[in-house]
Amino acid sequence: MRTIRTVRQLIAWRSALQRERVTIALVPTMGALHDGHRTLIRAARLACDAVVVSIFVNPTQFGPGEDLDRYPRPFRRDAAMCRAEGVDVIFAPPREEMYHADHRTLVIVAGVSRRWEGEARPGHFEGVATVVTKLLSLVQPDQTFFGQKDYQQSVVVRRLASDLNLPGRIIVCPTVREPDGLALSSRNVYLTPEDRKAASILYQALKAGEAAVRRGTGDAHTIRRVMQGTLKRERRVRIDYLAVCDPESLEPVARIERRVALLGAIRLSGIRLIDNLLVGV
Amino acid sequence: MRTIRTVRQLIAWRSALQRERVTIALVPTMGALHDGHRTLIRAARLACDAVVVSIFVNPTQFGPGEDLDRYPRPFRRDAAMCRAEGVDVIFAPPREEMYHADHRTLVIVAGVSRRWEGEARPGHFEGVATVVTKLLSLVQPDQTFFGQKDYQQSVVVRRLASDLNLPGRIIVCPTVREPDGLALSSRNVYLTPEDRKAASILYQALKAGEAAVRRGTGDAHTIRRVMQGTLKRERRVRIDYLAVCDPESLEPVARIERRVALLGAIRLSGIRLIDNLLVGV
Repeated sequence: MRTIRTVRQLIAWRSALQRERVTIALVPTMGALHDGHRTLIRAARLACDAVVVSIFVNPTQFGPGEDLDRYPRPFRRDAAMCRAEGVDVIFAPPREEMYHADHRTLVIVAGVSRRWEGEARPGHFEGVATVVTKLLSLVQPDQTFFGQKDYQQSVVVRRLASDLNLPGRIIVCPTVREPDGLALSSRNVYLTPEDRKAASILYQALKAGEAAVRRGTGDAHTIRRVMQGTLKRERRVRIDYLAVCDPESLEPVARIERRVALLGAIRLSGIRLIDNLLVGV
Repeated sequence: MRTIRTVRQLIAWRSALQRERVTIALVPTMGALHDGHRTLIRAARLACDAVVVSIFVNPTQFGPGEDLDRYPRPFRRDAAMCRAEGVDVIFAPPREEMYHADHRTLVIVAGVSRRWEGEARPGHFEGVATVVTKLLSLVQPDQTFFGQKDYQQSVVVRRLASDLNLPGRIIVCPTVREPDGLALSSRNVYLTPEDRKAASILYQALKAGEAAVRRGTGDAHTIRRVMQGTLKRERRVRIDYLAVCDPESLEPVARIERRVALLGAIRLSGIRLIDNLLVGV
């Protein structure tokens, strides 16, 4: 396994593979890899000849006052996981390699990035869209792997890749969870033991919403009340948003007539957690 | 020569060439080809194995009230020039092939796109940046050719390609002019005979500015007054802007200490003309 830190070397590596008609899978990450990333890497490994995992804590997707500085960066542990999973290249550029001092370009995906995380984190999806455009242009992967846990991000990235004709297919892999249902996230390490215990309530709320949909509850407002009811059992929880929305447009729906996305975002002692479920009817 | 109208076919053509290690040059145009385009095509032809000319009147770079609807579209004449110049593929997609109904993505190049044409034509460079990102992602050219006549556009595109790591090199070719100095432009056909006669004053003004720089005039304000003085000889002319600016940042300079870009935009009976000269000291 090789670690590449410059754009120039990455392009050289990618071009050499392309000349040999080797297919390339990309798994874009911010590092602090967990079993969710492991699932993406394994899917990538199965799908393509070569796998590149990018590890880049992208500054442009963090808002002021967010956790850019304290975001975990356990590079050696990440590299060990990548090596164990048969990754070919880790692309871990320093910040100035991705954003020169004179960088001025921003990619905006309107529509699907407006609500939910877009509202809670202004500028976040512009940062995501910009760095994903850069990574896809650099790697020119045949397939790129994202986790469903950041559901809105996956919708934004699909829209982006389609709108800008970026190379390759976007693959979204199912969320990986702790035994109690908490979605794996690099930010879970921020949780105090008490908050960690309380955190699985978000998944329970989504499951309660799913059960209500399956029971035939057609009214989205009622579904949200069901989810809210579950969350209220944990006094430590502050609700950021609970949404019943169209899985493609991410617009809220009033009546549940086809598949919906249930989205939730909560805070525990200031730490934000998000999760989602797709529910067919 | 082949005309390709769909994204899918273009990708298939490009992929097949890449597998054979054929280098590709892209000349992005809005059609209504003139000798300026011919120069770009010839440069492209010399630089790469295969040449694709895109012909697409990009709606997103036109503002409300601009000439999108009446922009000339002499496709058969354009195809004849391309054939005569040894172009391999014309990529002439219909609008809905480039912009699906659910297209929502916009590329913004801040900084260099703010002033001059950016101010005169709000949204113009966002449209340019978006379509260029799409074309470069689709064609994955080794080299892409633009004319210096749209100087600010060439600066925006260079910045864009560098910032988003878009494939290939950006090549800017010198402006081609009529015998009287008027820069070739597809929009020159809009000019009445009187305005056409008056139009070369813009080039004369830029040349007067250049001569003043060469005489050692170090004050940008004086240079602008010299250019203005020339333009005032034509009573039909309305000045949009005259700029003495840094050729990379496009910010106005006060003192001329190194190479500068002289930019000018005028109106003749409502028709906008732009031109520029790069002047070394």
